[in-house]
Amino acid sequence: MTKLWGGRFQKSAEAWVDEFGASIGFDQQLVLEDLEGSVAHVTMLGATGILPAEDVEAILGGLAQLQEKAVAGELEFTVANEDIHLNLEKMLIDCIGPVGGKLHTGRSRNDQVATDMHIFLKKRVKEAIDCIETFQKTLLEKAEEHVETIAPGYTHLQRAQPISFAHHLMAYFWMLERDKQRFTESIKRIDILPLGAGAMAGTTFPIDRLKSAELLGFSEVYANSMDAVSDRDFIVEFLSNSSLLMAHLSRFAEEIILWSTDEFKFIELDDAFSTGSSIMPQKKNPDMAELIRGKTGRVYGNLMGLLTVLKGTPLTYNKDMQEDKEGMFDTVHTILGSLKIFEGMVRTMTVNTERLHKAVHSDFSNATELADYLATKGMPFREAHEVTGKLVFTCIQKGIYLLDLPIEDMKKESELIEADIYDVLAPEAAVRRRHSLGGTGFDQVNIQIAKAKACLS
Amino acid sequence: MTKLWGGRFQKSAEAWVDEFGASIGFDQQLVLEDLEGSVAHVTMLGATGILPAEDVEAILGGLAQLQEKAVAGELEFTVANEDIHLNLEKMLIDCIGPVGGKLHTGRSRNDQVATDMHIFLKKRVKEAIDCIETFQKTLLEKAEEHVETIAPGYTHLQRAQPISFAHHLMAYFWMLERDKQRFTESIKRIDILPLGAGAMAGTTFPIDRLKSAELLGFSEVYANSMDAVSDRDFIVEFLSNSSLLMAHLSRFAEEIILWSTDEFKFIELDDAFSTGSSIMPQKKNPDMAELIRGKTGRVYGNLMGLLTVLKGTPLTYNKDMQEDKEGMFDTVHTILGSLKIFEGMVRTMTVNTERLHKAVHSDFSNATELADYLATKGMPFREAHEVTGKLVFTCIQKGIYLLDLPIEDMKKESELIEADIYDVLAPEAAVRRRHSLGGTGFDQVNIQIAKAKACLS
Amino acid sequence: MTKLWGGRFQKSAEAWVDEFGASIGFDQQLVLEDLEGSVAHVTMLGATGILPAEDVEAILGGLAQLQEKAVAGELEFTVANEDIHLNLEKMLIDCIGPVGGKLHTGRSRNDQVATDMHIFLKKRVKEAIDCIETFQKTLLEKAEEHVETIAPGYTHLQRAQPISFAHHLMAYFWMLERDKQRFTESIKRIDILPLGAGAMAGTTFPIDRLKSAELLGFSEVYANSMDAVSDRDFIVEFLSNSSLLMAHLSRFAEEIILWSTDEFKFIELDDAFSTGSSIMPQKKNPDMAELIRGKTGRVYGNLMGLLTVLKGTPLTYNKDMQEDKEGMFDTVHTILGSLKIFEGMVRTMTVNTERLHKAVHSDFSNATELADYLATKGMPFREAHEVTGKLVFTCIQKGIYLLDLPIEDMKKESELIEADIYDVLAPEAAVRRRHSLGGTGFDQVNIQIAKAKACLS
Amino acid sequence: MTKLWGGRFQKSAEAWVDEFGASIGFDQQLVLEDLEGSVAHVTMLGATGILPAEDVEAILGGLAQLQEKAVAGELEFTVANEDIHLNLEKMLIDCIGPVGGKLHTGRSRNDQVATDMHIFLKKRVKEAIDCIETFQKTLLEKAEEHVETIAPGYTHLQRAQPISFAHHLMAYFWMLERDKQRFTESIKRIDILPLGAGAMAGTTFPIDRLKSAELLGFSEVYANSMDAVSDRDFIVEFLSNSSLLMAHLSRFAEEIILWSTDEFKFIELDDAFSTGSSIMPQKKNPDMAELIRGKTGRVYGNLMGLLTVLKGTPLTYNKDMQEDKEGMFDTVHTILGSLKIFEGMVRTMTVNTERLHKAVHSDFSNATELADYLATKGMPFREAHEVTGKLVFTCIQKGIYLLDLPIEDMKKESELIEADIYDVLAPEAAVRRRHSLGGTGFDQVNIQIAKAKACLS
Repeated sequence: MTKLWGGRFQKSAEAWVDEFGASIGFDQQLVLEDLEGSVAHVTMLGATGILPAEDVEAILGGLAQLQEKAVAGELEFTVANEDIHLNLEKMLIDCIGPVGGKLHTGRSRNDQVATDMHIFLKKRVKEAIDCIETFQKTLLEKAEEHVETIAPGYTHLQRAQPISFAHHLMAYFWMLERDKQRFTESIKRIDILPLGAGAMAGTTFPIDRLKSAELLGFSEVYANSMDAVSDRDFIVEFLSNSSLLMAHLSRFAEEIILWSTDEFKFIELDDAFSTGSSIMPQKKNPDMAELIRGKTGRVYGNLMGLLTVLKGTPLTYNKDMQEDKEGMFDTVHTILGSLKIFEGMVRTMTVNTERLHKAVHSDFSNATELADYLATKGMPFREAHEVTGKLVFTCIQKGIYLLDLPIEDMKKESELIEADIYDVLAPEAAVRRRHSLGGTGFDQVNIQIAKAKACLS
Repeated sequence: MTKLWGGRFQKSAEAWVDEFGASIGFDQQLVLEDLEGSVAHVTMLGATGILPAEDVEAILGGLAQLQEKAVAGELEFTVANEDIHLNLEKMLIDCIGPVGGKLHTGRSRNDQVATDMHIFLKKRVKEAIDCIETFQKTLLEKAEEHVETIAPGYTHLQRAQPISFAHHLMAYFWMLERDKQRFTESIKRIDILPLGAGAMAGTTFPIDRLKSAELLGFSEVYANSMDAVSDRDFIVEFLSNSSLLMAHLSRFAEEIILWSTDEFKFIELDDAFSTGSSIMPQKKNPDMAELIRGKTGRVYGNLMGLLTVLKGTPLTYNKDMQEDKEGMFDTVHTILGSLKIFEGMVRTMTVNTERLHKAVHSDFSNATELADYLATKGMPFREAHEVTGKLVFTCIQKGIYLLDLPIEDMKKESELIEADIYDVLAPEAAVRRRHSLGGTGFDQVNIQIAKAKACLS
Repeated sequence: MTKLWGGRFQKSAEAWVDEFGASIGFDQQLVLEDLEGSVAHVTMLGATGILPAEDVEAILGGLAQLQEKAVAGELEFTVANEDIHLNLEKMLIDCIGPVGGKLHTGRSRNDQVATDMHIFLKKRVKEAIDCIETFQKTLLEKAEEHVETIAPGYTHLQRAQPISFAHHLMAYFWMLERDKQRFTESIKRIDILPLGAGAMAGTTFPIDRLKSAELLGFSEVYANSMDAVSDRDFIVEFLSNSSLLMAHLSRFAEEIILWSTDEFKFIELDDAFSTGSSIMPQKKNPDMAELIRGKTGRVYGNLMGLLTVLKGTPLTYNKDMQEDKEGMFDTVHTILGSLKIFEGMVRTMTVNTERLHKAVHSDFSNATELADYLATKGMPFREAHEVTGKLVFTCIQKGIYLLDLPIEDMKKESELIEADIYDVLAPEAAVRRRHSLGGTGFDQVNIQIAKAKACLS
Repeated sequence: MTKLWGGRFQKSAEAWVDEFGASIGFDQQLVLEDLEGSVAHVTMLGATGILPAEDVEAILGGLAQLQEKAVAGELEFTVANEDIHLNLEKMLIDCIGPVGGKLHTGRSRNDQVATDMHIFLKKRVKEAIDCIETFQKTLLEKAEEHVETIAPGYTHLQRAQPISFAHHLMAYFWMLERDKQRFTESIKRIDILPLGAGAMAGTTFPIDRLKSAELLGFSEVYANSMDAVSDRDFIVEFLSNSSLLMAHLSRFAEEIILWSTDEFKFIELDDAFSTGSSIMPQKKNPDMAELIRGKTGRVYGNLMGLLTVLKGTPLTYNKDMQEDKEGMFDTVHTILGSLKIFEGMVRTMTVNTERLHKAVHSDFSNATELADYLATKGMPFREAHEVTGKLVFTCIQKGIYLLDLPIEDMKKESELIEADIYDVLAPEAAVRRRHSLGGTGFDQVNIQIAKAKACLS
């Protein structure tokens, strides 16, 4: 076929070469955004008198038809027309005749594709923010149920100190809150319109870029046409924010997986969010959590991919930039799916409160209480730490826990220890006493939950 | 030596194992921040009555001595004491006796190290912002000198359309402006104090975290103690922002390198920012630009590194997180250095205006003018494009440019072409006519420069 | 629908959850490999007497039908059946009745999917090796044409010393040779069969794994069943080798792009491997080279993605590993396409020998000759370097080159310079004199080409 | 100071610019390799008669002195001399006078630095191979002790089937075996000498590159001088192989961490490889395993860093390549340290065989046995799977395990179940019966161990 840009060419590319360079296979996901941009562009061309009203009307009519077909999934794209822009232009001309060609007045594919990406990503980021907030609400509800559920708290995956299970869940609330913040702030840099930058130098037509921005609901236009067509920062920023979100989900997923093991058994996932094995009938696998943990790699990879693309490319548009799309689409799909699945998984999981209760009563996570007890009685903390360490070691030798250790044995290490130590060692007390701001004390957790609620819209 | 945490241990690690785990080799860069945090902590312990005034005074005295020595570079750290925190604690005790041990009351190394990192990074990000702004000012000055310097504008590294050289430089101004924005916004998430989170559950001491925050100049405290000790988002965000900054610098570096070639010769770097060859006497290499382009890899790598560390680690603190530091230090050093070098390189470079002038007069970057000319006379743009393409091909065959082509030859392709075409084809005119908002037209570039000035503090 | 593993489950997952976990959307690319593996497996089950001959025959008949349909593109997969394995099993049962279920005897999806991946990748890597070799042949042909074409050689993208253009092209030959070596060596680690590892512990059926290996043309079987089902090293290695290959192509692409600029103009790409602009009629863009340079990011990203997936996952199979596939498929597609395109691009490009000739006659890349000349006459090299540097500077001031500098001016810097210097400075002579082994001297380049030919099969 | 390459320069760089570009801060790690290369080079210059014997003798004498001082740590490097090469050249001249300058005859820093890297890495990779083999031996010893130790085997971190603990350990043996293979194969591509490639075009001196190779113990020389100075593949390959090694160690580390938890308690680490907490006296943290898991990020990052550096850089040497060193040094240090620590950690850990025994007797990992039992009795496997799933569910409801379920309850689901089922369900029997090649059956594990021994040198 004849290329739309073939004047100085003596020879056409072969089909397989065309196919390698064509983007229609994936950029067709921008079909609605491309049409939306075109509607605004031609409306502006009319408003400024660049195109006569009848041409504008004809083009708008054609675009409306294409929109309808696009929504109905009736458009058929072809590699021969390279990309979504040329595919739609051809269709428009087929539909309304040569006047369709005037749509491209004062516009280049360089500013057009950038415009499509901005429109697309602005919508998706908002969707992501909504999904985050839905997940946060679920976390909050779950936390409210479990303020008084005592669980082991870990550092180094070793039992450290008993905590409120709500406190643990709320840690993820705040990670998501920061994710939400970052996505929200990033919108400012997506919400800038490149349309009107032309190939890279602007245009000689008396276009009205602010009008286009208004029509498309953009707050700003790019101040520099060269920057406008070669900027892909907003996508990198999206991928960075998504990577951090996935890092958070991967950490939570790891815990869901651990908690679901026979060894921990702190929770049980709903059947709807688990799968079995084709060969081992007893299996109930936390597949969704594993898959989300795995999908973290994909999003990190997409980030690295685009950063690599940008490295060392001169201004302005280079074909390398076509590689911005698939990673972005894939990441949008991945984070939206992961957030929805995770929300459902957490909402429907059963917390095994008995098991948690038993856990904190059969470990040494109350050892700090003993050390603090001694320190309060005047023993230097380092010494108190040493004494407690020895008592822990004694217990391990005997196969018992601190609460089981007779007072005489305790006194052997320090006469400061009295019978009230058993109250101090009770896990509930240990949690309650940590009422420093942001600590795991029940009252503090309630305060925290109230603060969190205020973050939700 | 005896570990400070060795009570339940029967055996010490061997020296080489200790060395592998020790962080003092690099976290000594946090010495001032660690001391700063300790001063605030002990002051708070005094204010809340947790420690008596005389202890506080003694400790503050000791810390002041250590600060003095630290500034003078007189502290000697040892691997035997693992990290900066234990090294300083030992030194304090050596200096003022056992009372020094009380400094650690109500604090854990987990919240302490996080505090140090927050203090450190807040300072450095502000420094980065200053460096960016200095560079922006230089760009602006350079741009103001070259508003009317006409240069070839490129897409696909092929001459596309003539532009104002200032316009090209200003494209980087806006990239840096976005970098500045991102770094500035990120401060909000660095400016949160983890101190008081204890090991991860908070503390039983009646500490006043808001007081500590006030003393250290933090706007907020972490709402959740588990999140406080395991959050490394603020470092990832710093590395992401730095990666994008380096992507920009790498693009600019690529252009500096291209422009410095014999083939382009658009600029000449100052001798102070170039190097020679030990074997080829004629060489003048744009080493600094190459090095910065190369250093992009290091920063991307640091980002990938930390993202990998975080993937799938359960709450709360895990030793993996010790790996957050070197990449951060290295990135701080890299971006500050790169910004300073780049600023100097651009400030001192000579723009070869003659060469640029000659360039735009001996290429086909004015071809769009001809197509637009025909379009304005009523020819559909696609046809105008085709006609122009053929005339370009004719010129190439003859080894001339459009301005050299006789009017008769032009008319052979279209009778619409008149003698006024030669005015239209003049590169200056081509630039001037692109006066759409944000375009390269001289007036627009001046407007853009004015807008840019308003962005600088 | 009822899951094949649903016995202990009380509730089914909702459709959208299923869809998130399903892999059929992409693992259908393994359809032929999955069938191939099944044919071998059931044949082995027959040979060992685990299944009676009539069952084997029935199953083989069913599999043959599915293979036929698969080749014809007539199979329709459904998300309800999760993955390619269950889809095909269902189809087999639909086709030949319940006996089809016996195919899965002594096999698990865990060893099955790993088997599919090994079969798939072994084929593709061989294909990649062939593509590399085809490209190498083209390079060799091009090099043979241009042994005596003199061109500027660069370091720091500054003209360094004149070289044979063939020498430059041959540098890529050797990079590709190493790529080929690495891919070839990697086959050893792909050519190991996991089939028979069961879910991860082996099986109780008296299977014959060596028989399966023989049937599938594998040299070895995994020595450890747990390793067999959780090993994805062979894919990481493929992605690493592909990343390095793309790094090479990206370097070559960068040079193709540079050489195609107006400024360099060292080559002209064939129209079939270039594209134009929808707005600028003169443009002829090296799109394919840019795109390949950009696609480097995608392959790097896929590598980082899988490395991230593997980080910290415990043995044996985890659902995270499902994420191994898309990056592998995408990389296979990318490197095969890139190699084919690049080969065609190089084969059809025109080398502008005149321009290259002119280039080396109007630069200072012969400066080393002068320094060597002086050194040979007894001047210490560092001094010779200094003298030459000054003469270069003199020329720059005068706007001439060394060959244009009168002998008197030369003698001003050193009396050692005689009239024979002009012969020495001739670029041809400069190239010819570099006849050290592997150097650019014409004779050496011919030797190199002969050596290269011996590397090709 | 005066640069060695300053002839054509009118102005020196400022100190801070020099510092940014200098590599002496890290490339001093190549001091011995640089001297080793120089000794070979000057010896060759003597053998070929390029330098007279007395000069060669003088230079060798000077180099010997420098080597002695280097070993004694008495050399002091300065940023003013940029890099290790110029630092040593200056020292040599200071030591033996101007004749020292002749060492650089027929050599450039471009081939010199590449030579240093090749010498360095060849040694280190061999060291890494030795460390891997030492670790493999330890694994083998540990495995031999635990062939009959039965443990739960996992998929999805859910108990799947009982296994021999030796089988689990041996899975890592084979991963390391592949690592060893890859590192060994990579030596072929490190063992190629670039020396003699000059700046990039070869040299006019009649050097004997094969002589240099012989002296330095290299098997081959680069066939193309341009490739020789710009090839960094061997470093990327090292980083790729190291990344995969770290992926393996991170997986093993994850398991060590899990097994050390209160919940699993399958092993106890030696005190020498654990650390405590400054605040929680009971803690015994698997710090070394966590740290190694974390260091995976650093190695991945170094790989990503160098791949980024190489992307799109034209031939031949560019200053970007200076960025190849730090990541390589860091990776060498990281993998050698990680391997040594891991070996010690595994060698000294105690396997809690009782706990493992108890674990497999209180879970459903024998469910597959029941399904297989039914299948063997003629029930289609899918049905057997279903029946077993129901019995598992019954047990869960009752809080018992399959071995505890009365025969009547079993028969309710299928009359095929007889009293011999209790023998079949015994974990020992379950392991023993998996005697397929490479399976976990005790006899198979012994065969596997024998096979593994044969892999060790």
